[in-house]
Amino acid sequence: MKLETTYQSNNYPIIVEHQALDQLHPFIKDYQDVVLVVDEHVYNDWHETLDFITTENKAHKLVIPSGETTKTLSYYEKIIEKLLAEQLTRNTCLVAIGGGATGDFTGFLASTLLRGVDFIQVPTTILAHDSSVGGKVGINSKHGKNLIGAFYRPKAVIYDLNFLNTLPYTEILSGYAEVYKHALLNDIASVKNIEAQYPNEQALASLKDIEYYLFKGIETKLNIIVQDEKESNVRKYLNLGHTFGHAVEYQFKIPHGHAVMIGIIYQFIVSNILLNTNYDILHYIQYLKSLNYPLDTIQSFEFESLYQLMLKDKKNNQTGVQMVLLNAIGDPQVKHVDKAVLSQAFEAFITYFKK
Amino acid sequence: MKLETTYQSNNYPIIVEHQALDQLHPFIKDYQDVVLVVDEHVYNDWHETLDFITTENKAHKLVIPSGETTKTLSYYEKIIEKLLAEQLTRNTCLVAIGGGATGDFTGFLASTLLRGVDFIQVPTTILAHDSSVGGKVGINSKHGKNLIGAFYRPKAVIYDLNFLNTLPYTEILSGYAEVYKHALLNDIASVKNIEAQYPNEQALASLKDIEYYLFKGIETKLNIIVQDEKESNVRKYLNLGHTFGHAVEYQFKIPHGHAVMIGIIYQFIVSNILLNTNYDILHYIQYLKSLNYPLDTIQSFEFESLYQLMLKDKKNNQTGVQMVLLNAIGDPQVKHVDKAVLSQAFEAFITYFKK
Repeated sequence: MKLETTYQSNNYPIIVEHQALDQLHPFIKDYQDVVLVVDEHVYNDWHETLDFITTENKAHKLVIPSGETTKTLSYYEKIIEKLLAEQLTRNTCLVAIGGGATGDFTGFLASTLLRGVDFIQVPTTILAHDSSVGGKVGINSKHGKNLIGAFYRPKAVIYDLNFLNTLPYTEILSGYAEVYKHALLNDIASVKNIEAQYPNEQALASLKDIEYYLFKGIETKLNIIVQDEKESNVRKYLNLGHTFGHAVEYQFKIPHGHAVMIGIIYQFIVSNILLNTNYDILHYIQYLKSLNYPLDTIQSFEFESLYQLMLKDKKNNQTGVQMVLLNAIGDPQVKHVDKAVLSQAFEAFITYFKK
Repeated sequence: MKLETTYQSNNYPIIVEHQALDQLHPFIKDYQDVVLVVDEHVYNDWHETLDFITTENKAHKLVIPSGETTKTLSYYEKIIEKLLAEQLTRNTCLVAIGGGATGDFTGFLASTLLRGVDFIQVPTTILAHDSSVGGKVGINSKHGKNLIGAFYRPKAVIYDLNFLNTLPYTEILSGYAEVYKHALLNDIASVKNIEAQYPNEQALASLKDIEYYLFKGIETKLNIIVQDEKESNVRKYLNLGHTFGHAVEYQFKIPHGHAVMIGIIYQFIVSNILLNTNYDILHYIQYLKSLNYPLDTIQSFEFESLYQLMLKDKKNNQTGVQMVLLNAIGDPQVKHVDKAVLSQAFEAFITYFKK
């Protein structure tokens, strides 16, 4: 399956297939230098394939630590200086092979190396179906996630679903949050459908028909970002669950999607308070439990520090916290929520998880 | 005098006037946060004016060291973390008030802060008439100048010529190199005219009629960059004198324009060898001496290390060094020059300066 962005110019293809990696070569063959930037776990599982690609394309290969540990300025400095030592020119393409962190980090490298070189996203996780599309790249600050970065489009997204075969379940859970989020942004039928497809851990771990849901998720995201690349308005909808989620992720260092799922539940509670919606909170909590999301961390939540982190979210544009709330499933809006409401929702939220 | 870029979209005005700073307010009044990033020397000379602007706009003010010392990753980290600690949002405008280094550094901050916030260039030197226009921002790597950066347009360039009143002569000399370069890219009449206007140190130090030449220089540059913002082809012409110049500047830490003037002379010699031109090298050396450019550093030049630095220039796109050469005054071209020719030109070059 293949999608293409529909910006006015500089569009890029998104290929979502088993064996999609076989289609990488034509995208990189004409560069003077190609650098594969590979997550170490991915490299361990797929070194034969990746070594073949390296040799075939006379590429440089850089194996980097897995996850968010690369997304610091000190690691960025180490790697960009290493690349610059190779006397690369602007006729260089970086290829990010890994999860969301690898894509974010490599994309930021590409956006700033020699004032910008090309890059290609090769996502290897479910989570990265989301982060690899849309051109957000960046690293973390000591004040919060992704606060240093750019909007910088890849030249292609090549999503080889074979990579998903070696994903541990915790990674599947993390990625599933964004797939589920895209269903919530679509309509109630999408949500019922996906909950029926993946009612429990066993079903989700099988990843049966996941191509369909990934494709739908990417489609939902594309429809939004071509209207608003730089997140002035509707792109903010994609942050559903992320305001509280990012704060939780940053403070407790839990996987991104686990935190987003928690943020989605919190958002339902805020909506019930502020918008007089009537979401069945227990249903959503029960669904997360059926999928076996680890929720024990919630015991340690404390409002004030999470609130301070929420204030730092870069989507804020005035005093108070900007959140995406669902008027109804499929009907998001951006609301400023004041501290009193956030606090009230927080108290309600933790009550559900008290032992 | 006012110019406007002519890109397809996202154009910006360039105001070149005495008292141009009076026109800053409307550009920044609607931002939630404004941060003035001011070169310390400029602040020393102009603190009353700048404090007034800070107060008038309820701006943050950040006084930074003068010159290239700010253009390191470690200083960048210090400042971006400091800004992020202020809980700025994307509705922020950075205002760079200083020379080229301040603009480069502040622009790079703006391009990466929260994935990009707006910025305005307020150049205070002659050199910055060049660097403040065109959207090149960046910092230095340990492998060379400006190797880490972006193409990122300012929202406006506000060039208050009053700042030039406090420029030391060495700064005037440095800036004059780019003004002279723009004349060389124009035509022989421009060169004769500017040499007649500024035949010696006394004339140049007076800065009489400098507005005209700055305006002409910006116009020349604009004509080129709107055709080729990202330096794929004609924008490379603006690097006249810069291939050798950057290497000299990086190795000997002399002012940018002093190095560019040396690079311009070197380029004339390469042209005479490679293009069979017949430039009167002694004329150009004599002109530099009349203006009192410090040329003693040339005694310490050594080919091999400068060649290695030239190889690292990011404009290279294959083996060998890419240089701008003048077929004739006003008729630049980009040529790959091999090591043998570079070396031959170098030997000829230093012969002129042997004691």
